[in-house]
Amino acid sequence: MITRTTERTRHCRFLQPFAGTPVSPPPFWLMRQAGRYLPEYREVRAKAGSFLGLCYNPALAAEVTLQPIRRYGFDASILFSDILVVPDALGQKVDFIEGEGPRLEPITDELGLAKLDPIKAQRKYAIVYETVKRIRQDLPADVGLIGFCGAPWTVATYMVAGHGTPDQAAARLWAYRDPDGFGRLIDLLTESSVEYLAGQVAAGCDALQIFDSWAGNLPSVQFDRWVIQPTREIVRQLRKRGVDVPVIGFPRGGSNRSRRFVEQTRVDGIGCDTAMSVGTMKALASTHVVQGNLDPLLLVIGGRAMEDRVRVILDMMRGKRFIFNLGHGIVPQTPPENVAKLVDLIRSEGG
Amino acid sequence: MITRTTERTRHCRFLQPFAGTPVSPPPFWLMRQAGRYLPEYREVRAKAGSFLGLCYNPALAAEVTLQPIRRYGFDASILFSDILVVPDALGQKVDFIEGEGPRLEPITDELGLAKLDPIKAQRKYAIVYETVKRIRQDLPADVGLIGFCGAPWTVATYMVAGHGTPDQAAARLWAYRDPDGFGRLIDLLTESSVEYLAGQVAAGCDALQIFDSWAGNLPSVQFDRWVIQPTREIVRQLRKRGVDVPVIGFPRGGSNRSRRFVEQTRVDGIGCDTAMSVGTMKALASTHVVQGNLDPLLLVIGGRAMEDRVRVILDMMRGKRFIFNLGHGIVPQTPPENVAKLVDLIRSEGG
Repeated sequence: MITRTTERTRHCRFLQPFAGTPVSPPPFWLMRQAGRYLPEYREVRAKAGSFLGLCYNPALAAEVTLQPIRRYGFDASILFSDILVVPDALGQKVDFIEGEGPRLEPITDELGLAKLDPIKAQRKYAIVYETVKRIRQDLPADVGLIGFCGAPWTVATYMVAGHGTPDQAAARLWAYRDPDGFGRLIDLLTESSVEYLAGQVAAGCDALQIFDSWAGNLPSVQFDRWVIQPTREIVRQLRKRGVDVPVIGFPRGGSNRSRRFVEQTRVDGIGCDTAMSVGTMKALASTHVVQGNLDPLLLVIGGRAMEDRVRVILDMMRGKRFIFNLGHGIVPQTPPENVAKLVDLIRSEGG
Repeated sequence: MITRTTERTRHCRFLQPFAGTPVSPPPFWLMRQAGRYLPEYREVRAKAGSFLGLCYNPALAAEVTLQPIRRYGFDASILFSDILVVPDALGQKVDFIEGEGPRLEPITDELGLAKLDPIKAQRKYAIVYETVKRIRQDLPADVGLIGFCGAPWTVATYMVAGHGTPDQAAARLWAYRDPDGFGRLIDLLTESSVEYLAGQVAAGCDALQIFDSWAGNLPSVQFDRWVIQPTREIVRQLRKRGVDVPVIGFPRGGSNRSRRFVEQTRVDGIGCDTAMSVGTMKALASTHVVQGNLDPLLLVIGGRAMEDRVRVILDMMRGKRFIFNLGHGIVPQTPPENVAKLVDLIRSEGG
């Protein structure tokens, strides 16, 4: 069993499972908890102008990070930002089109790599560090603060296609056609992500999560090379730099390879998507911290359907090193009162 | 080990694995082998007008079904049609918009179900049976003919959302909110699919495949209820009617639940997506026929990358009850010469 204790562990329930201590009721937070389902978020978002403008505005980004903590008292907050901050900071043109999602000027070969500048990226990363500092200042001392980045593979799928894709075909084709060239993009993202994550921790983050939303579709050989290897390298380089906070991996869609993922990457914890069975989560919890995996659509529905499922998860994971969360981000149409009900339920029945 | 022998087994390599006999080199066909990557297909498609027009034109649909058999000598052909023929035949408005995919008038509650008429569906199903008869007439006797339908869950995701969706949210929400009502849509699709598949076999199909392209994302409980149960019911009802041809299930994205899927549905074979490891395929092959799972993007690339992977699959599955195929449909940008190379490779090195 991997354990990781930091000076903050004693004061922070969210960190205790990583130190080897199951916590009862389990600590909880929700992926995308700072988001469009909250009226107070929509108000700030309207003020900010563009979505990236909000990500790069420390005062407003800190404010929306703190909103769900004030409203619900989650055990952890997560830096409000986006995984495409990394390519944007590196110099790729990134826009968020309302109702359509991100649009990037695609990078499809090694020539495109020349446009990316890890030194220049520091300038925009510094704005994010400033946000982290502000959050830390205003966050209750017992609430964890999670920093994050997208995993190199998932970020690359957007950088290569220029937008989100159901099948990640553009990145997969480049990776097949020219694994060395594509590998250089992955290496560049790996290095810059390490820099970025280390900076977030230096600025005050207690833990890190690496989001690999598009890991699931890859054949095993490619999963090992483009998902496991870069994540292991990020963890290795962070440890080498002395960054000792817990790292949570989230290889979405990779249920059937989760055991290999945790062992080979050496992450401390794993985020579990909605398709992972509670039995598999329980098995993973014997060696790692497990976080997940309520279907976010059950938070939209609420009522008995949600409550029954929450009880199953709480019962099955009782006494394990478990952090309650969703299996995917909370969706905009979620009624905020359902989140309040979820919080009550975890507090009253999660013990 | 489940085995299934029909009167055609002796003459048809494709059917022999189902009778318990590994075939060397393995029989092969490709999902979506009649399709846009072939210039002769594009010619017929242009003549047909609309995409559904092509599906409902027995002469042209038979012609495009036969094209890849003539060009490559695959061991099986698959009826040219679409999984949305079922909702269209049932009376839901279905259109295919060039470059955008299918658009349906969404059915989101039980009132919508009233518009669907299984009796009326027979009229359009009969056109498809006519296509099957024509294919059978012109198909070499030793080539298998596969009929198919979409699995109720996957078809329902389109019927409820009105289009393809990355997360199947609309159908999943209905299923959570009102499982009985949604269950009636699934039951109706199950019944009508049984009718449709039985009709395809009566018209001359040698085997059936049930495509569940959107099975992967479902939490376990929903996977059991909306993927496994309806598929098992289709198989059960087909057997009750005396339909004794092999049935192949294809729960795409369901790698981590493939063992449960084959055992509980009682399909004879399983299609394996690109994310399934060859090790898992090998394990499944001890009891069931296994079909898959080359990444279709490797057929776009060709060359060493494709050849190396094909050799790994052939080596690992040698002596097993295995049918070589892709892990997902062939894509339009595939160079036809790469398919020829694949066929050569299987024939020369698959023994």
